[in-house]
Amino acid sequence: MSAANGAPKGRVCLAYSGGLDTSCILAWLIEQGYEVVAYMANIGQEEDFEVAKAKALKIGAKSVHIEDVRKEFVDETIYAAVSANATYENIYLLGTSLARPIIARKQIEIAKREGCDYVSHGCTGKGNDQVRFEISYYALMPTIKCIVPWRIPEFFNRFQGRQDLLDYAAEKGIPVTQTKAKPWSTDENMYHISFEAGILEDPDTTPPADMWKLTVNPEDAPNTPEKLTITFKDGRPVKVVNAGDGTTHTDSLELFLYLNAMGRKHGVGRLDIVENRFVGIKSRGCYETPAGTILIAAHRDLEGLVMDREVRKIRDTLSPRLAELIYNGFWFAPERELIMSLVDHSQKGVDGSVKIKLYKGSCTIEGRSSAVSLYDRDISSMDIAGGFNPQDSEGFIRTHAIRIKAWEAVKAKKGNQ
Amino acid sequence: MSAANGAPKGRVCLAYSGGLDTSCILAWLIEQGYEVVAYMANIGQEEDFEVAKAKALKIGAKSVHIEDVRKEFVDETIYAAVSANATYENIYLLGTSLARPIIARKQIEIAKREGCDYVSHGCTGKGNDQVRFEISYYALMPTIKCIVPWRIPEFFNRFQGRQDLLDYAAEKGIPVTQTKAKPWSTDENMYHISFEAGILEDPDTTPPADMWKLTVNPEDAPNTPEKLTITFKDGRPVKVVNAGDGTTHTDSLELFLYLNAMGRKHGVGRLDIVENRFVGIKSRGCYETPAGTILIAAHRDLEGLVMDREVRKIRDTLSPRLAELIYNGFWFAPERELIMSLVDHSQKGVDGSVKIKLYKGSCTIEGRSSAVSLYDRDISSMDIAGGFNPQDSEGFIRTHAIRIKAWEAVKAKKGNQ
Amino acid sequence: MSAANGAPKGRVCLAYSGGLDTSCILAWLIEQGYEVVAYMANIGQEEDFEVAKAKALKIGAKSVHIEDVRKEFVDETIYAAVSANATYENIYLLGTSLARPIIARKQIEIAKREGCDYVSHGCTGKGNDQVRFEISYYALMPTIKCIVPWRIPEFFNRFQGRQDLLDYAAEKGIPVTQTKAKPWSTDENMYHISFEAGILEDPDTTPPADMWKLTVNPEDAPNTPEKLTITFKDGRPVKVVNAGDGTTHTDSLELFLYLNAMGRKHGVGRLDIVENRFVGIKSRGCYETPAGTILIAAHRDLEGLVMDREVRKIRDTLSPRLAELIYNGFWFAPERELIMSLVDHSQKGVDGSVKIKLYKGSCTIEGRSSAVSLYDRDISSMDIAGGFNPQDSEGFIRTHAIRIKAWEAVKAKKGNQ
Amino acid sequence: MSAANGAPKGRVCLAYSGGLDTSCILAWLIEQGYEVVAYMANIGQEEDFEVAKAKALKIGAKSVHIEDVRKEFVDETIYAAVSANATYENIYLLGTSLARPIIARKQIEIAKREGCDYVSHGCTGKGNDQVRFEISYYALMPTIKCIVPWRIPEFFNRFQGRQDLLDYAAEKGIPVTQTKAKPWSTDENMYHISFEAGILEDPDTTPPADMWKLTVNPEDAPNTPEKLTITFKDGRPVKVVNAGDGTTHTDSLELFLYLNAMGRKHGVGRLDIVENRFVGIKSRGCYETPAGTILIAAHRDLEGLVMDREVRKIRDTLSPRLAELIYNGFWFAPERELIMSLVDHSQKGVDGSVKIKLYKGSCTIEGRSSAVSLYDRDISSMDIAGGFNPQDSEGFIRTHAIRIKAWEAVKAKKGNQ
Repeated sequence: MSAANGAPKGRVCLAYSGGLDTSCILAWLIEQGYEVVAYMANIGQEEDFEVAKAKALKIGAKSVHIEDVRKEFVDETIYAAVSANATYENIYLLGTSLARPIIARKQIEIAKREGCDYVSHGCTGKGNDQVRFEISYYALMPTIKCIVPWRIPEFFNRFQGRQDLLDYAAEKGIPVTQTKAKPWSTDENMYHISFEAGILEDPDTTPPADMWKLTVNPEDAPNTPEKLTITFKDGRPVKVVNAGDGTTHTDSLELFLYLNAMGRKHGVGRLDIVENRFVGIKSRGCYETPAGTILIAAHRDLEGLVMDREVRKIRDTLSPRLAELIYNGFWFAPERELIMSLVDHSQKGVDGSVKIKLYKGSCTIEGRSSAVSLYDRDISSMDIAGGFNPQDSEGFIRTHAIRIKAWEAVKAKKGNQ
Repeated sequence: MSAANGAPKGRVCLAYSGGLDTSCILAWLIEQGYEVVAYMANIGQEEDFEVAKAKALKIGAKSVHIEDVRKEFVDETIYAAVSANATYENIYLLGTSLARPIIARKQIEIAKREGCDYVSHGCTGKGNDQVRFEISYYALMPTIKCIVPWRIPEFFNRFQGRQDLLDYAAEKGIPVTQTKAKPWSTDENMYHISFEAGILEDPDTTPPADMWKLTVNPEDAPNTPEKLTITFKDGRPVKVVNAGDGTTHTDSLELFLYLNAMGRKHGVGRLDIVENRFVGIKSRGCYETPAGTILIAAHRDLEGLVMDREVRKIRDTLSPRLAELIYNGFWFAPERELIMSLVDHSQKGVDGSVKIKLYKGSCTIEGRSSAVSLYDRDISSMDIAGGFNPQDSEGFIRTHAIRIKAWEAVKAKKGNQ
Repeated sequence: MSAANGAPKGRVCLAYSGGLDTSCILAWLIEQGYEVVAYMANIGQEEDFEVAKAKALKIGAKSVHIEDVRKEFVDETIYAAVSANATYENIYLLGTSLARPIIARKQIEIAKREGCDYVSHGCTGKGNDQVRFEISYYALMPTIKCIVPWRIPEFFNRFQGRQDLLDYAAEKGIPVTQTKAKPWSTDENMYHISFEAGILEDPDTTPPADMWKLTVNPEDAPNTPEKLTITFKDGRPVKVVNAGDGTTHTDSLELFLYLNAMGRKHGVGRLDIVENRFVGIKSRGCYETPAGTILIAAHRDLEGLVMDREVRKIRDTLSPRLAELIYNGFWFAPERELIMSLVDHSQKGVDGSVKIKLYKGSCTIEGRSSAVSLYDRDISSMDIAGGFNPQDSEGFIRTHAIRIKAWEAVKAKKGNQ
Repeated sequence: MSAANGAPKGRVCLAYSGGLDTSCILAWLIEQGYEVVAYMANIGQEEDFEVAKAKALKIGAKSVHIEDVRKEFVDETIYAAVSANATYENIYLLGTSLARPIIARKQIEIAKREGCDYVSHGCTGKGNDQVRFEISYYALMPTIKCIVPWRIPEFFNRFQGRQDLLDYAAEKGIPVTQTKAKPWSTDENMYHISFEAGILEDPDTTPPADMWKLTVNPEDAPNTPEKLTITFKDGRPVKVVNAGDGTTHTDSLELFLYLNAMGRKHGVGRLDIVENRFVGIKSRGCYETPAGTILIAAHRDLEGLVMDREVRKIRDTLSPRLAELIYNGFWFAPERELIMSLVDHSQKGVDGSVKIKLYKGSCTIEGRSSAVSLYDRDISSMDIAGGFNPQDSEGFIRTHAIRIKAWEAVKAKKGNQ
């Protein structure tokens, strides 16, 4: 096969970012005797794709594939996660995790189309992303082989720090951006940006104000709140209207980007946590997820109005499991499909509109309405009966008390033993 | 027994609030031939207890018992809930639910001490509070009998609106505060205040700015953030320090009240939701829970640093159940004791300090530290190995992929059938 | 409305069994001024429907409707329960609970067709069946009204024991079977028979050998085992073959009845438990569920072969909840539909055959096969590698140990404090 | 360190079974330059320990340690599992999993005492036992190093089948039992024996009658049932009485061994399943667990009588997780301690006696009693009120129906859209 590919060791499809690490990996793979097809996913990150493409070609990539996957990202994984209120460890909105399956699926498509024997990525051997990429690869193409330089001793022993990479880049003629390296690492996509490592490794260090990128500092946000109305259909956002200036979006991608812009403006969506990685390590991460924060707040609120209590409770027992398996990299897994089948069922009729206010870092619900509300103003009223017979509560309570009384009677008996 | 009590029908211990409803109930019970012992719990609400006492005596209460239960409230139920991050339907902090068992327990104590045949309260027949009170009563004194006027046709047919109560008050000489009735109902204690009914019955109506009572409007909050450090021991708050002025509190009640004051000042802890009552009705409620909001945010953050991932995950499967049963009124129930036994176990070693910033409605974590942290800077570092062998991840991922590959193989086979 | 029905109080559709209780209820309802439409469901119980019909007409029923619902019983509720391995409190196969929604749905159909204002049944006020019937009624016809004589003081005070019923029957000319009353109550349908009350109320009393009805005593069962092969498609039984005599059934009802006959012959499916009723009372029940016991054993075994581990685990967290809500009477409820949507998803591909042996009370699995097995003989072999790299396990284990080591390190530190 | 141990590579504590595999491993480790301390756990398996000891010494073990850990096995892990009804995948009683932590803990004790640098075992690289041993080792001694020959290429490439091992044994003068190898593998301890591999690798092959070892064939069991009464205190068995001959045991180990003998006699406790290994492989296993099968049946039955419904339900959500983590090897893990803390709490008051009948493969409950029963004969009676007001059920049901009616109303509305 390698002969057919024209390289002694065969052909590799490398997930290429344009940065120092994957540029060195690209050069190193070629040095090892592989032919390399570079692949860049446009997942909404800030990036000059043409500059990166030229760089990859200069280093020696056989070809460079730039793919805009933003639409499938928002439609397939982001809105699925919103419809489940998927939140890892009750707090993290899964920005990186939701992007990985979309990136990996396109990479496998290209690897198949280009006849690659291998796929490769620049993730480290300690993190979650290696798992997310590789589980996705193996699911979509069980015979694929992975080359992971940061887990190969020849590679990681050679490149023990940033200076080794810079030296290698100089040696190989790889262009290096002259900006000073930031004292943290980032991963950015349309849903969020993450910050970790470097000075953040002390979990007690407050992130510096100039670290945050996708949102303004709440202290610098406008003094006037922004009021939005978000409309959902079957648990997915279908419209956003700015109550102030009337701006309206209904396209799934456009409304998402608009919410990002609004969240950014008002400093909404920052997070600083210590989380548990799948490999068993704790790590400290900071995140900005503007649109996601707004959407989940609005979606969860709407569910209060239109979702049956028991349906919600059952779905809520599975959402944390869904979040966990997305975090761990199991998007392309039968259990993810299973839980989503239940979530989708639960979202039928999650229709309605939520009024939300953004102000200096917070997003506040101000009302909600729905044509299929389960809320009945009359029956819940304190002032009128509304079809409710208060005497029924007597039997309800007395029946619930039977078990408690039996328990107390036996407890007293035990105490006397 | 009634003879001994000196009243034809016996003696009642009434949970008395000083307001119009329970004042009329007090008079009505006497009119029905009961002797009434009035009981008021000081649970941290804003109230002139002496005025209320005089009023109850004037109406005809045999005695009035005012009991300060704030300390047991904070120590027994509030901090237990914080240690479990107990949140009903993922959002509501249970302010009323946590107060009811404390109030009911003291009421039963008084009922026993005063030789009462009955207990009574002023809750309606549609709400949660009737359940919370009565399940607690029955648990603590299985033989007690409950008189619930709002479920008795003779009472609720007679008093069909506020005017009927006012007329009755006039007739009975019950003093009525001349303030105009607010277009909503409230329940206040040290942990929170709730607003419901009236104009809030339309879930799309934004609460008016002058409704909120325990917190300033975020827009009116100071332009300068407040920075606090909260220290926990075994999951319970033991110290708060204001990083600005050095104010320090270590007493459980004082530190709680201080956090309330700080939250109030910065507009932290408002909530507006549609929730599911135990009796099967949806209702709309607005809440202010300043200290609780701050404490749970800080506590949850600390757990990221010091709690084992799997321990946290298991506890997190039970916290919603705990919140539900507290909400439903089952504090004095074997299942509440059971779950708390697990929560308490999980909190051993939840020790450390969290830095938190309050600013215009939001509370933001800015760092955390602990002497018993499970976070290992070296092992989680992206820059050094720290004892982690990156090659181990290879086997970890490949082993996890076995199941996924098998699944994909069979899926392909099914597709071919 | 009652005028239209020709009776002063209106028309009632009564679930009629032909026994003493519902015969007296029929007469009593007429006595109270109702017009009564009697309804008997053929749910597979042993009953002479024509005799019962004649009896109801003689008592005064306006009409008698006998409906064979056996096919929908097996197809809609029994096989759904089997596909979920639904088992209440880990042991009870829900024989009565699965019949009630089928009976109630047909009753509501008849009530609508016959223009009834009311439905009625003969269940007591302490049991589960009243809930199962009435929740089903209200779900299917929210405006229906229920007349439940055993909860009406005029009725239950009048009929305080069997003798009162016999006296009333004599007075009303209701024919009474001359067989002596058994010292227990039963409820029988195609899926099972239940025994409770009477001498069984002492939970330490061993049921007498002559109580059991649907199965022979294991001690009296044949000395030669019976061997069957049961085939499932998408988790539902589609074929049974007797390995001995070649008997084969593929019709859903016929194969079920055949398994009942085989289970009966070999004494399979007896159960004696103390269970928790929905109303909070413990009760002792004995059950015979021959086909159900065999089917769930076979179905669960097949899942081992064809179901993904994580899919199974997630489904298994919901099966007990499903069983509970079926037991409690919530078949026609959104949460039942929700969980079944997940169960159905999980059952796609639960295809294959299971060999089972019946012998003197036990049913034993002897092998299983499937065209879509996830079991891979090569990869699980102890003797050959089969594509598995044993070195991968090293990384798998070492990675899993990271978290444990961190925990032990901190535990040691805590111990030293 | 190795110098101090007198061997070029250091000292190893090997879990030695006396069989062909670990004998060859012992010789091979010595050949590789290690000094080997052999360790045999008496965990209740059938074994001539003195013969095995002589063999190990002959091969060259520096010392041989035989440790009777049966008492701690039964007291610490077996009865803990019984008290939780711990059952993996709803069916497997965890016989091997429960032994491994006990074996590993003693091995680490010896390794420490003997100054070993390494521990070693003879488990393969595809199974669960490698994980169970090594997670235990790492938990109890984080710095220990593991030598796992079946994962070392030099070893597994050299020994590709039984014949290679036999040749090596001949070469090294290792005595080999002349019995013909059975066409399956076994692992035996006091709790169970497992059979897998060989002819069992076809999951449709019925195990031959002569495979089973710890129980007689049900067809060969006595025609007369055996009747036992088992008494529990706080969920642990404390007494067994044979109702026939009066035999009584109260010592935890003796009563366990007696139940094993009774189960063996009556053919109780066989199991044949396809299960999911932790490493992601399905495998077929057959098991005999006589006493465990009896104990869990009795224990589960008693819980019906004495355990609160909600307590049981909550415990039942955690038992499968407990079983899973025990199966996966995480006995010495914080999450196991956490769940056991809840299980222990739930078992307070699980006191009472259960009557059980053993007969030709089945074990049947025949009654149960307790001084702290939550069952109330009067209140559950169908014949008397017993303090239960049947009218209360009306309100109970009507209140539960509110939510269902609201749901149906909205469903109708949706249908009309």
